[in-house]
Amino acid sequence: MNRSRISILLFLFLAITLLDGHAQSGGKSLAEKLGFARDSKLLIVHADDVGVTHSVNAATIKALDTGLVNSASLMVPCPWFPEIADYAKSHPTVDFGLHLTLTSERVYYRWGPVASKDKVPSLIDENGYFHHDWAATTKINSNKLPVFIARDWFADHPYLESSLTSGDIVLDHTVTIAPSVPPEKWAEFYKTALKNLQPGVTELVIHLAFADDEMKAATRERDTWGAAWRQRDFDFFTSQKFRQLLQEQNIKLVTWRELAHAARQ
Amino acid sequence: MNRSRISILLFLFLAITLLDGHAQSGGKSLAEKLGFARDSKLLIVHADDVGVTHSVNAATIKALDTGLVNSASLMVPCPWFPEIADYAKSHPTVDFGLHLTLTSERVYYRWGPVASKDKVPSLIDENGYFHHDWAATTKINSNKLPVFIARDWFADHPYLESSLTSGDIVLDHTVTIAPSVPPEKWAEFYKTALKNLQPGVTELVIHLAFADDEMKAATRERDTWGAAWRQRDFDFFTSQKFRQLLQEQNIKLVTWRELAHAARQ
Repeated sequence: MNRSRISILLFLFLAITLLDGHAQSGGKSLAEKLGFARDSKLLIVHADDVGVTHSVNAATIKALDTGLVNSASLMVPCPWFPEIADYAKSHPTVDFGLHLTLTSERVYYRWGPVASKDKVPSLIDENGYFHHDWAATTKINSNKLPVFIARDWFADHPYLESSLTSGDIVLDHTVTIAPSVPPEKWAEFYKTALKNLQPGVTELVIHLAFADDEMKAATRERDTWGAAWRQRDFDFFTSQKFRQLLQEQNIKLVTWRELAHAARQ
Repeated sequence: MNRSRISILLFLFLAITLLDGHAQSGGKSLAEKLGFARDSKLLIVHADDVGVTHSVNAATIKALDTGLVNSASLMVPCPWFPEIADYAKSHPTVDFGLHLTLTSERVYYRWGPVASKDKVPSLIDENGYFHHDWAATTKINSNKLPVFIARDWFADHPYLESSLTSGDIVLDHTVTIAPSVPPEKWAEFYKTALKNLQPGVTELVIHLAFADDEMKAATRERDTWGAAWRQRDFDFFTSQKFRQLLQEQNIKLVTWRELAHAARQ
């Protein structure tokens, strides 16, 4: 996972305001706080990038309706944010968070900051859009925002663990598919990931859209996280096969909202 | 045509920098300057709102390829502007102008100014988007930009004629379809307009897109200038019927680029 994708995966979850310390540094585990046994396999199926296009919105709403996808993050600066904000207002119990958005990574379809451009000159390019990407040396200052961090990342990024405070909550694992998986192995990758799911809370980060004209055009300069990729994710995560795997592997779905509630107890 | 649509129809044409006076106040008419007889019927078939969605871009490019639509205006602040700018760079002879864009008139899909928001506070709403519409009392100050004005408008808007200077060029007529025309009368309206076309230069302002998922979602709150409207325009203006009408009525297509060239002679 490159630095750009990490920047895209920093989530600020609206529902979480105060979290009470390192779940596994003593006392109850996250799973136990949620009311499950310590060795339960708990899963958040989280749809990324909502608001970026109509296609992503439509696919995510349809997937949420199945109950198999149960969490999603919204990109506020994107042009289709008003559509999903309207949906969120009429569906107040859906597990939506905010997707911290500091890049505009595509070529033919772009956006800039919500803030006045004068106030955030380092975030924008010469055309006033967010930069396509960030340099590896860019410092991310999250302003004490509660962000999505998983213990899996500590080995590669030791500064994450050392910068944790008593106000932080940390997921146990995260899973997301990589560009190295060929399209025909897509379902197999997820099936294996679900069969090998470890105890604790895992966030599965997925990318939904329909491979329609809008999405193909918005992502046509490269295949990674493109229209076909997102259609494959949609197809798997709204399938009966996925529902059966959850049952067979005794995996329970949980939400960020439940985590926030449990952490406040 | 309400005030909002007029604001949308103010075009700044890149190709036109210096224009040499009232064409019909003496001397040669616009038609004559273009090398045609004074009573020639000349037509600009101009596609509006390019850049606003991918669907509008794709339909406009396809229509331009037929040669039957021969001019279009680009909305710079819109999210899909980079796609059409890329096309414009590789098609430098296409008759593109700039579409002065000071509103964001839809509900579920929106955009804001290119300028830093701090510098244009009167143009934006509480969410930082352009206003949906302008009040009838709003003053339009075009900063001496060359704008698309037709003599047809003088009766309803006398200030237009009185504010003309010797640097202004004025089209003879403009035609655009209105919401009062029912869908089944669409082709008949255009056929009648073409059969009754008056001598001089007329601009026919049309609105192209495909009635696909993106366009339906972007315009779903009302039918006016919506997905179905734009598909009907696309179907008529790329049809053999339209090509035949141009031939039968001896109507010649001209561009803003030709007007600018003629005006400089």
